[in-house]
Amino acid sequence: MIGIDVGGANLKVVDGDGVHIHYCPLWEKTPLVPLLSEYRTDPDTPAAVVMSGELADCFQDKAEGIAFIVRATKEVFPRAVFYGTDAEFHTTAVPQLAAANWLASADYLRTSYPDAVLVDAGSTTTDIIPLPLFPELKGLTDLRRLQKGYLIYTGMLRTSVPALLRIVVLDGIPTPLSTEFFAISADAHLMLGHITAEQYSCDTPDHKEKTRTAAMRRLARVVCADPGEIGTPGARQIAEQFWDVQRALICDKVRKAMAAAGATDVVTAGIGSSLFAQELGGIDLSEELGEASDALPAFAVRELARGSDFFTRHPLRQG
Amino acid sequence: MIGIDVGGANLKVVDGDGVHIHYCPLWEKTPLVPLLSEYRTDPDTPAAVVMSGELADCFQDKAEGIAFIVRATKEVFPRAVFYGTDAEFHTTAVPQLAAANWLASADYLRTSYPDAVLVDAGSTTTDIIPLPLFPELKGLTDLRRLQKGYLIYTGMLRTSVPALLRIVVLDGIPTPLSTEFFAISADAHLMLGHITAEQYSCDTPDHKEKTRTAAMRRLARVVCADPGEIGTPGARQIAEQFWDVQRALICDKVRKAMAAAGATDVVTAGIGSSLFAQELGGIDLSEELGEASDALPAFAVRELARGSDFFTRHPLRQG
Repeated sequence: MIGIDVGGANLKVVDGDGVHIHYCPLWEKTPLVPLLSEYRTDPDTPAAVVMSGELADCFQDKAEGIAFIVRATKEVFPRAVFYGTDAEFHTTAVPQLAAANWLASADYLRTSYPDAVLVDAGSTTTDIIPLPLFPELKGLTDLRRLQKGYLIYTGMLRTSVPALLRIVVLDGIPTPLSTEFFAISADAHLMLGHITAEQYSCDTPDHKEKTRTAAMRRLARVVCADPGEIGTPGARQIAEQFWDVQRALICDKVRKAMAAAGATDVVTAGIGSSLFAQELGGIDLSEELGEASDALPAFAVRELARGSDFFTRHPLRQG
Repeated sequence: MIGIDVGGANLKVVDGDGVHIHYCPLWEKTPLVPLLSEYRTDPDTPAAVVMSGELADCFQDKAEGIAFIVRATKEVFPRAVFYGTDAEFHTTAVPQLAAANWLASADYLRTSYPDAVLVDAGSTTTDIIPLPLFPELKGLTDLRRLQKGYLIYTGMLRTSVPALLRIVVLDGIPTPLSTEFFAISADAHLMLGHITAEQYSCDTPDHKEKTRTAAMRRLARVVCADPGEIGTPGARQIAEQFWDVQRALICDKVRKAMAAAGATDVVTAGIGSSLFAQELGGIDLSEELGEASDALPAFAVRELARGSDFFTRHPLRQG
């Protein structure tokens, strides 16, 4: 059994060999089929799939995105099954497949952590999922999750700095930011030592190096400056104040979700797992699951499929 | 005499035939030399140049950007002169050439409108320039202009929607936005009828059509939705609330600049000229200058060079 999470920016695969993460921006027409084919040892391999990449703007709408992803996956894995926001497996492109990856994680963890809020801090978004409310989570779209504070559209790597930080205080002077796509959260987190260059797995905004020096240059540019104009302390102030806003935004929503759900624990996953476990006093799933924590939905949907009787009920289903 | 403004996203040329605007993103390596060559009828044509494109992130720093732009321009127009933030013309790549385009506009208009604040609402940024303070404006970098409220990094076309609007109220429900690059100010202004499809001169985020239907699709995506999920009224609410924030931000800074400079008038230019003239009760330069209002720095630097004795003093200067 292979677990697959087709995001807009990343393709994540979990198989017997471990966890495989590819930066795979669908809107740049990164080819899905050859990437998936690397993991097919046998055409009969059963695959369990979740997605969120149907929102990528290369698709006219979500239906087109779902159809594309289902077609591409089944081309490689004809026996693939797709987990939906109804918490059921499907074999065809139905609307329920849109952005159900977070629910697979919840479905898998709810038995072990019935009193917890799950915080999956990924590259692009942060999912905040109150596990005690699992039955009510079914059917939620990303629009509804934004409104409920369950989907925070900011992540450890790909968030444009001015999308969170409007004004930075540089040596006491409030400085509004450029709204250009000059620097991203990965630059701030690299600068602050929260991630390594290897964890900076997406492209850089300027297509240049993933070093602290280059990140500093990108951060300086968000106030229309060369590094020489604001110095290392200036670039550091931008990184720190970005993180202050990002941390406050996420931690606030986690606390609200805990209160609303009567949850007593926090469990964290994703590339920001240890950082947020520390901030929130939570259980760091990366200690329990290892690198699978960075691909939790792919891991979870594989476990769900293994535990379900779907393949027993549909031993040769191809539809 | 030809006037040239080399921005990061746009190349603007003013010559005897009129105004020519090219979407020319330097960071995508759009070739400057062939574009400029279209306007060379005679190698001795004098050219007056301003720039802001040195900030584009294809360049390591501003010095590299300035050197590149000066070299490319002089390859086509060997007699080119470059206006700097010291309000002087230069013939070589000096640091003063960084982002002096707004000062050329101010220098040209300050005699006719000595008591006005100039508001140049362009595709990417809005310059707010208190003309009574002209002597103090010299030497200001973009960093300092951001801090003083003279450079608002938002424009009529290229501003990412979530860079200004953090939360939209959809049918009474506060809805945080996706921080993805899904929709831009041009989509909001097209939706609201503030610009035409022809004025939408930059690329669309999804590389799809410049129609209201396509703009609606892009606007819906900023709340992770298909147009069907929020309807036309939902997309309209996003466009309206984006414009509310953008208008308030700009008008507030204009009023502060007026108060600080003791200015009594507002003159407006740029693609948002008539819109802001209306909002602020200002003089719309597009009525006086026609399309030159959309390329004010290129027009202004040409007029400044024609009025200066620089070419008389340096009749054959090539250095």
